[in-house]
Amino acid sequence: MSWLDVPAGTGFGIGNLPYGVFSTPGTLLRTGVAIGDHVLDLAAATGDPVHATGRLNDLMARGPAAWRELRRRLTGWLTDESHRTDIEPHLLPREEVTLNLPIEVPDYVDFYSSRHHAENLGRILRPDSPPLPANWRHLPVGYHGRAGTVAVSGTPVVRPCGQRKAPADDEPTFGPSQRLDLEAEVGFVVGVGSALGSPVPVSAFPDHVFGVCLVNDWSARDLQAWEYVPLGPFLGKSFLTSVSPWVVPLAALEPARIRAPERDPRPLPYLRDDDHPWGFDITLEVRLNGHLISAPPFATSYWTAAQQLAHLTVNGASLRTGDLYASGTVSGPAPDQRGSLIELSWGGQEPLALPDGSTRTFLEDGDVVTLTAAAPGPDGTRIGFGEVTGRVEPAR
Amino acid sequence: MSWLDVPAGTGFGIGNLPYGVFSTPGTLLRTGVAIGDHVLDLAAATGDPVHATGRLNDLMARGPAAWRELRRRLTGWLTDESHRTDIEPHLLPREEVTLNLPIEVPDYVDFYSSRHHAENLGRILRPDSPPLPANWRHLPVGYHGRAGTVAVSGTPVVRPCGQRKAPADDEPTFGPSQRLDLEAEVGFVVGVGSALGSPVPVSAFPDHVFGVCLVNDWSARDLQAWEYVPLGPFLGKSFLTSVSPWVVPLAALEPARIRAPERDPRPLPYLRDDDHPWGFDITLEVRLNGHLISAPPFATSYWTAAQQLAHLTVNGASLRTGDLYASGTVSGPAPDQRGSLIELSWGGQEPLALPDGSTRTFLEDGDVVTLTAAAPGPDGTRIGFGEVTGRVEPAR
Repeated sequence: MSWLDVPAGTGFGIGNLPYGVFSTPGTLLRTGVAIGDHVLDLAAATGDPVHATGRLNDLMARGPAAWRELRRRLTGWLTDESHRTDIEPHLLPREEVTLNLPIEVPDYVDFYSSRHHAENLGRILRPDSPPLPANWRHLPVGYHGRAGTVAVSGTPVVRPCGQRKAPADDEPTFGPSQRLDLEAEVGFVVGVGSALGSPVPVSAFPDHVFGVCLVNDWSARDLQAWEYVPLGPFLGKSFLTSVSPWVVPLAALEPARIRAPERDPRPLPYLRDDDHPWGFDITLEVRLNGHLISAPPFATSYWTAAQQLAHLTVNGASLRTGDLYASGTVSGPAPDQRGSLIELSWGGQEPLALPDGSTRTFLEDGDVVTLTAAAPGPDGTRIGFGEVTGRVEPAR
Repeated sequence: MSWLDVPAGTGFGIGNLPYGVFSTPGTLLRTGVAIGDHVLDLAAATGDPVHATGRLNDLMARGPAAWRELRRRLTGWLTDESHRTDIEPHLLPREEVTLNLPIEVPDYVDFYSSRHHAENLGRILRPDSPPLPANWRHLPVGYHGRAGTVAVSGTPVVRPCGQRKAPADDEPTFGPSQRLDLEAEVGFVVGVGSALGSPVPVSAFPDHVFGVCLVNDWSARDLQAWEYVPLGPFLGKSFLTSVSPWVVPLAALEPARIRAPERDPRPLPYLRDDDHPWGFDITLEVRLNGHLISAPPFATSYWTAAQQLAHLTVNGASLRTGDLYASGTVSGPAPDQRGSLIELSWGGQEPLALPDGSTRTFLEDGDVVTLTAAAPGPDGTRIGFGEVTGRVEPAR
């Protein structure tokens, strides 16, 4: 229990302590920790310049022992009444701070590790082929995205222009995307890099990964459908990827750890995780203009983040502090657990009815999409992730 | 003419003046300009701290007017005898310096813009489909690669491990790549970034691109063939991308500018380049263990670097200083103009005979691959690009 008044049901209780980067009017960016409705100014509270760099990278690069020690200190400060006079002056109301992109992202990778999502997309986009590609149950399929267009929650989603060609069209045309979509994903932030030529085994996941955020990998389905053969998504994804401003430390998700669903066939040795289960019982929520439209269960993911990291590096590729990799769209087995509009509207053929009487296949200008999530915390509490939100603006 | 003794036939004459980042034993990294067999230490010669940052990014970010002014000064210093006493002490023998990765690369994109290469790969890999994908003549197909594994020439090429499955195999297996390949490419370095939401038209190419280097986009064909459906190349490419240490300024390539081959069908308006031809008459040379095995003509590229940049940003994606994008493998129409071993050995079916009596389908441990290139310079001179080289080491 904290001496601070933490609202009941908050996702930012003493068991969470997520890190972000914030400013207040006229002040420089610095690292903060969310607690209830407040932010603890770490630069001021600790005097450590690592918290005044305007990004979490320098803290993350210190490694797991330093992360644990800082978390231990923070927990002490916020629970032991004797620290109150020292710490209270450095708490700011959360509503008064501006949150920044928390990490500088050197490389961004997006996976495709939800079986229900991959099967849904296969059925919608490639109805004449088996729903899962032949490789899908053998390796975590993924690709590199554009690190330079990863932006913090709240960044406007300007409808992208590009080429698209429906199968019935003779020629491609150019214009604003007509199939702008959201993708509800969970993101993993690398804290400690690795050397070129040194794969990171599944067991070393917690030695490298600092924490977890939410990701909306906005997608222009019409641009993507035309461009993606044979080298994968490019402009259909690269216009914007939004992330939540709070990075939840891996330690806060210990109560949420679970075993992933059984994999069949058994993965190759470098992907085996029997002794290192790194699934997480995180439930996402997708809201469109305030209406809950889906609740994708991350627990159903086929490949875990530890397996994704092992795969990503098994060819010797190196990691850098700040590297971000995302789960791919999270979809559960039920229709109201689908993490994208292309699934929720089944390729645009079954418009989604919203409680306000309107319908949607894909996003319209002015639409606001908000992702949130929750995981079980210690003692029946809830771990929250804040939100990642974006409003669609007309094409320029 | 320079007052310096510049060897006849050098690729680094007074019309070139490429930039690199170097050190000598016991000294810090700094920017240098290659001239003949020497390097001019720009940090010492100018006293400008922009040349002491250990990367070209800070110089590049100053923009085209600053690039032009610096080039004008350098040309004056190296041609006007009156500067000799001031400048000569800052010239180092090129063989005595160690060359570093010249740029910090925020995002790396690889295109696929050689028609002969794309057709060859289509015929080899997808013999039952038309050689060119349906989108290929409408847009420059491309994808994001791993920026963190872009490394300077000379970096060892450790044979990557990964999953591969031949069509006849029941299950994938794990192990060292058996189809390790080279890809001869031309790279373009972004000097001036762009804002999110602001496409860069074909006409603005020289306002953003600083210069040109050589790229070897090493490829593990067996890993790639198994993983690439549906999201494109990933581990088959991400283990290493080697670049030459010298960046040739765009201004040095003015005499090499040509019009690209006619495009049919006519591209959509944002890709039209009738008034902005940015093809380059650059001839690459590929050497395997010292033997010339191919001379790919970059002049045959279907899409120019200006069109690639316009496409890359047309969806609003932003650019950052240091972004690198590569042409994709360059292949000409003739068999000895193919820029990869998968083409030169036609998918491994027609081993390449080397003058030393050995044959190759794909790269063997110990093989050394070296790419060089030349373009016409002023007054009958030749513009060189240095080299990008790498030696294959056994899998770890």
